[in-house]
Amino acid sequence: MSIQLAFKALSDPTRRDILELLRERDMTAGEIAEQFNMTKPSISHHLNLLKQADLVIDERQGQFIYYSINTTVLQDLMSWLWTFKKGEK
Amino acid sequence: MSIQLAFKALSDPTRRDILELLRERDMTAGEIAEQFNMTKPSISHHLNLLKQADLVIDERQGQFIYYSINTTVLQDLMSWLWTFKKGEK
Repeated sequence: MSIQLAFKALSDPTRRDILELLRERDMTAGEIAEQFNMTKPSISHHLNLLKQADLVIDERQGQFIYYSINTTVLQDLMSWLWTFKKGEK
Repeated sequence: MSIQLAFKALSDPTRRDILELLRERDMTAGEIAEQFNMTKPSISHHLNLLKQADLVIDERQGQFIYYSINTTVLQDLMSWLWTFKKGEK
């Protein structure tokens, strides 16, 4: 279930920071790692969890793999959250 | 950090089901437990996590404690998710 994986992926601050970074532009794992005080394997682990949750997409461009945000699941989450507005008092 | 606790709380399907149930009307822990094939202590545990994440509020009404949805944090989550729409391609 993607909503499940997505909420789990988003419960980690580093993974939210990665998404906020990718909001600016697509980046390679190396570029992302440079922005954090973390090893590249740690960043790769977080990127994999984001990928499993369909929150990011990786795409080869020439010799590099670029990560970008997949807005589809984020929109699914928003739709789910939106259902709670109806019953607002 | 409430956004942190909220995403964590929402990563569990039972807790999302509880919220969906409370979307219909406010309920006591007992009424909620009746809807699930779970013990009351298990439901209480989930309700506590939802309360810690500020996703539900408990309020005494006479001799009963009613749980209701707190939309504030849900709106914070929506605002955060919304920031990713801007960069949409």
